[in-house]
Amino acid sequence: MNVIEAIERRKSIRAYEDKPVEDEKLLAVLEAARLAPSASNMQEWRFVVVRDQATREKLMVASNHQLFVAEAPVVVACCAQTDGRVMRCGQVAYPIDVAIAIDHMTLAAVELGLGTCWIGSFYEDQVKEILAIPEEIRIVELLTLGYPAGPGRPRERKSLEEIVMYESWRND
Amino acid sequence: MNVIEAIERRKSIRAYEDKPVEDEKLLAVLEAARLAPSASNMQEWRFVVVRDQATREKLMVASNHQLFVAEAPVVVACCAQTDGRVMRCGQVAYPIDVAIAIDHMTLAAVELGLGTCWIGSFYEDQVKEILAIPEEIRIVELLTLGYPAGPGRPRERKSLEEIVMYESWRND
Repeated sequence: MNVIEAIERRKSIRAYEDKPVEDEKLLAVLEAARLAPSASNMQEWRFVVVRDQATREKLMVASNHQLFVAEAPVVVACCAQTDGRVMRCGQVAYPIDVAIAIDHMTLAAVELGLGTCWIGSFYEDQVKEILAIPEEIRIVELLTLGYPAGPGRPRERKSLEEIVMYESWRND
Repeated sequence: MNVIEAIERRKSIRAYEDKPVEDEKLLAVLEAARLAPSASNMQEWRFVVVRDQATREKLMVASNHQLFVAEAPVVVACCAQTDGRVMRCGQVAYPIDVAIAIDHMTLAAVELGLGTCWIGSFYEDQVKEILAIPEEIRIVELLTLGYPAGPGRPRERKSLEEIVMYESWRND
């Protein structure tokens, strides 16, 4: 599957088949994250892969009771081990770096027939406690991973005209 | 080219051929950004596409004199029109959302034979002035785009063992 096709097919998957993810596919998805670029090649991402049913149920509760978090056979807590470094542009590097790695995972997953969903609605302190994640680590997103039980809901997107400008702000 | 191959081939490209990017390729790269997911589907990303030579030279100066910023035939200022919304997990949504869109662009570019480089080393106030970007808009990254004048420098990556844990933090 080519890149553009994977980007077009990727949807947020909130219903999963009761079928485990094969080890080799999980590793291929994690490898896609591993190869991601990061500011000054810091690679501050850390991934806690959860397959245990009881733990996923606790993560579901900590994620605002989104039931598919327990349903997905794999949940990845996407973390940063970081000193909070700020780039010259004023942006903190780690949320961007972790997002790049997660995006790689979501597209690799599509190619492997898997689905994912980015989850930002969770209580960081609760997830830290469930997974024994140290105080100083930040959890940027949770990511569910598994075989989709449907194609996912298509979402509207703004047109290119609404989001792209040429040469300067609104001067096209 | 499949997704995994694009992820493996993508390098930060800091030398570009003196050759313009065709309109259809530029639009395909922007389309990849347009289709990206974002928190609550906010799509707060905005892209200012710069091809003008004189403007790119100004951006080069504002980017800590990284010469390839003027050399690349296209520079995209990747911005956010945002109220700074914070997700339940405590992370600000817009840097993550813009990063997802940029990552889509970088992988689509590889498939089209193009190269990119994420640039976080720039002075936001200077770039805002050059591109007439309003005060309330944030610029998350600059992205160069063009035909690579070489394969890019391979960078070391940590092993999977260094970045992945199972079931809980360092309990594998």
